[in-house]
Amino acid sequence: MTPGSVTDRFVGDLPVTDAEGAAALVADDATVLTSGFGSVGYPKAVPLAMAEADRDRSLTVVSGGTVGDEIDTDLLETGAIDRRFPYQGTRAARDAVNEGSVAYGDRHVGGVADEVSFGLLADADVAVVEAVAVGEDWLVPSTSVGQTPAFVEAAPRLIVEVNRAQPLELARFHDVYRPSAPPDRDPIPLSAPDGRIGDPFVPFDPERLVAVVETDRPDSPYEFRDPTDDDLAIARHLADFLADEVTRNPVLAESVNLQFGVGSLGNALMGELSGLDVGDRTLGYFGEVIQDGLLDLADRGHLAYASATSLALSRDGQRRLFDDLDRYATEFVLRPTDVSNSPALVDRFGVVAVNSALEVDVYGHANSTHVDGSRVINGVGGSGDFTRNALVSVLALPSTASDGAVSRVVPMVPHVDHTEHDVDVIVTEHGVADLRGLSPRERAAAVVERCADPSVRPALEAYLDRADEGGGHEPHDLDTAFDWR
Amino acid sequence: MTPGSVTDRFVGDLPVTDAEGAAALVADDATVLTSGFGSVGYPKAVPLAMAEADRDRSLTVVSGGTVGDEIDTDLLETGAIDRRFPYQGTRAARDAVNEGSVAYGDRHVGGVADEVSFGLLADADVAVVEAVAVGEDWLVPSTSVGQTPAFVEAAPRLIVEVNRAQPLELARFHDVYRPSAPPDRDPIPLSAPDGRIGDPFVPFDPERLVAVVETDRPDSPYEFRDPTDDDLAIARHLADFLADEVTRNPVLAESVNLQFGVGSLGNALMGELSGLDVGDRTLGYFGEVIQDGLLDLADRGHLAYASATSLALSRDGQRRLFDDLDRYATEFVLRPTDVSNSPALVDRFGVVAVNSALEVDVYGHANSTHVDGSRVINGVGGSGDFTRNALVSVLALPSTASDGAVSRVVPMVPHVDHTEHDVDVIVTEHGVADLRGLSPRERAAAVVERCADPSVRPALEAYLDRADEGGGHEPHDLDTAFDWR
Repeated sequence: MTPGSVTDRFVGDLPVTDAEGAAALVADDATVLTSGFGSVGYPKAVPLAMAEADRDRSLTVVSGGTVGDEIDTDLLETGAIDRRFPYQGTRAARDAVNEGSVAYGDRHVGGVADEVSFGLLADADVAVVEAVAVGEDWLVPSTSVGQTPAFVEAAPRLIVEVNRAQPLELARFHDVYRPSAPPDRDPIPLSAPDGRIGDPFVPFDPERLVAVVETDRPDSPYEFRDPTDDDLAIARHLADFLADEVTRNPVLAESVNLQFGVGSLGNALMGELSGLDVGDRTLGYFGEVIQDGLLDLADRGHLAYASATSLALSRDGQRRLFDDLDRYATEFVLRPTDVSNSPALVDRFGVVAVNSALEVDVYGHANSTHVDGSRVINGVGGSGDFTRNALVSVLALPSTASDGAVSRVVPMVPHVDHTEHDVDVIVTEHGVADLRGLSPRERAAAVVERCADPSVRPALEAYLDRADEGGGHEPHDLDTAFDWR
Repeated sequence: MTPGSVTDRFVGDLPVTDAEGAAALVADDATVLTSGFGSVGYPKAVPLAMAEADRDRSLTVVSGGTVGDEIDTDLLETGAIDRRFPYQGTRAARDAVNEGSVAYGDRHVGGVADEVSFGLLADADVAVVEAVAVGEDWLVPSTSVGQTPAFVEAAPRLIVEVNRAQPLELARFHDVYRPSAPPDRDPIPLSAPDGRIGDPFVPFDPERLVAVVETDRPDSPYEFRDPTDDDLAIARHLADFLADEVTRNPVLAESVNLQFGVGSLGNALMGELSGLDVGDRTLGYFGEVIQDGLLDLADRGHLAYASATSLALSRDGQRRLFDDLDRYATEFVLRPTDVSNSPALVDRFGVVAVNSALEVDVYGHANSTHVDGSRVINGVGGSGDFTRNALVSVLALPSTASDGAVSRVVPMVPHVDHTEHDVDVIVTEHGVADLRGLSPRERAAAVVERCADPSVRPALEAYLDRADEGGGHEPHDLDTAFDWR
């Protein structure tokens, strides 16, 4: 049985049970693979039932990307999770990770499907995934596709949550293609960012399906803050840069494939780029998340298509999408994360990647994850998949944090997620530093002059003078690299 | 006219001149693109003639990879080179770069063809390339293919040096394929590491050929030191790790595609892996350089094939190759660097990458390039192309430098070329730390216990205890991160 146009949520002879029954099938020390990406499309009822059972567990939980509070707060706070991959996005999980009570590894999310498939991260016991419909050997994902196709293939047992709060028509967004395995891996046969090469459903071995649970609990999605004055200034500088870049970069002669990072700044940039002048070029999106700002761009007719792995919308954004699903389903496509974030595809489509960072250094290295080099916020996520492989990699961030008390432009970042080799352009509310073709000394001068807050420029220049006394291609003064003000 | 089996070095009506005549065609402030990779296959006569002309020049020189003394010593020391990409490998160039008299940008060499093709690094004026034969619209590269196909296409003018010291039969190694351009870039149609998808020659627009120069000056190739006791111990640990890995990693069930980094340690590891037990698997090589050690492996019948962009052999290795060229030409293939180092192909072939580093930190970040974070040695080269995209990324290095006085395992590297997300395994003469599936704290314990020199383990542990007082996912004590002993 396969789903043509899916009209029923439960098709065939299924092991339907309640959440408690399904939760009881998960061993106390299991490695659990979950759906979910961008805080949507993750399982809710089974994790909550596991939390309520309050057993002495030592789980390893591998999610697609960000999942909601049911997993990373309610279940986590029972002490049930010992180990966590590849990304977390709640205060509870962050605190547990930074305390060391949860062993966490943040990973490039584009590589997680392979790591799980080949047993390089953890040996899977059970996959728990949300769907809008399920049959005996297929399921239709809900608001994110994430790593679900790989996880369902890797886990010997499968539990499916069918969520009636998610429209059945979400099937129309999905394009599920499973890359083959090395060393005879075929190229992903996607020839355009908006192409379709797969099915709207995820197939599975029917013998692995051990439980189907019904729920109607909605996602607990992101909440985006309103754009700040700095966000708007960054968006203006970014639009100016892009308007210039498209005229001189031959790859952008006919179309521009943008990507924006997850979060409020990325969301604001998506939304505020309506003034972007790309001439008569086609403007598209090839990224990992579709956020509210992209709906704004699409609604204004500026966006021809968007490819991602998650509809990472706010509650209001979900309402807009669900209310006009017919229209959006022709413009948007959701793919597995190892396709949406594929290094090869990011390269082939010549993506212009715009990601944020906690801080950048004057030479172009970026810290996306660790405050003071130690305390993690979320994880590297997909930022490396895009930054490393893009045609043009832009980092966009405010020049300061904490109401101006802390500079985000520093001499040396205390944690590096993206190196100088992968960062092309830095944008802050003060301006744009295009680092391409520059030596480190030249990059430092450009970043200080164009991106740093004017109040810290003298201290940065003093650092560079001090560092220069010791010489070197990329001069540093290690005694004051972290103590420069 | 095209070369079938090439029997003549000069075919057709060619603008033959002497080196001085060709050098006079290069503007004093030109951007010059040169052939060469792994210190072989670079132009020699024209750069020497330019050096001897002793004009007041301000050149930008973009090479394929490492080139020899004719460019990076003789020409450079006349002060003619203002700007240099993407890699350098001579003492003179290193000194000039560290003094700041040459503005240098080290780049992922796998991305340089694109950067030059799309004008993102510098606007090309002239390509100067070495060949073993040339026709009116084609040339056959010599000991390296490097970036030559892209450079010849990007530069409005072309100067070819035909080198009679290089055997005409080198044509048999070459497989020249030019990737198409984004956003409609096709996947590279190479379905196996030893496949062939191109031609033995590089085509060019005949109107661009402005000079052909004859020379018989040999390459000034690498000199490899003999393996040290530490090299041999590292090779044994690496062989043990690989023998275990092939039995549990499903991607390695039938064949193993290795890559080794450039240099004496990589060369030693290639040569000393004859004891490697991979069962009845096919052992192949998909890397950027073929060094002497790989000849040893091939001579012993352990290696089925090798794909690279350069025959980066010592003088003795070149002699061995040239003397038995018929045999080696069936096992080895040379490709353009954007194919040999293609992130997509490294992924598709499931490459096990083994690269070295100056130092690693306890969490798995690596510094491949900058001593004390400031003084560059060579450049990132291809290490990132492989480390970032490999199935398994190994960093192999001695635990100490300077006769044991300096630990190469440190709390925090002062320059990051490869992040914790991309480094899977660290090998020193003391043992193997497999970092996969571990949290940063667990990684630190493994690296200290298995890889650090015993004499520094107490100091590293004291650092980690100190860092742990401040907490965090990846604890650091920034006050003593660079001052920990």
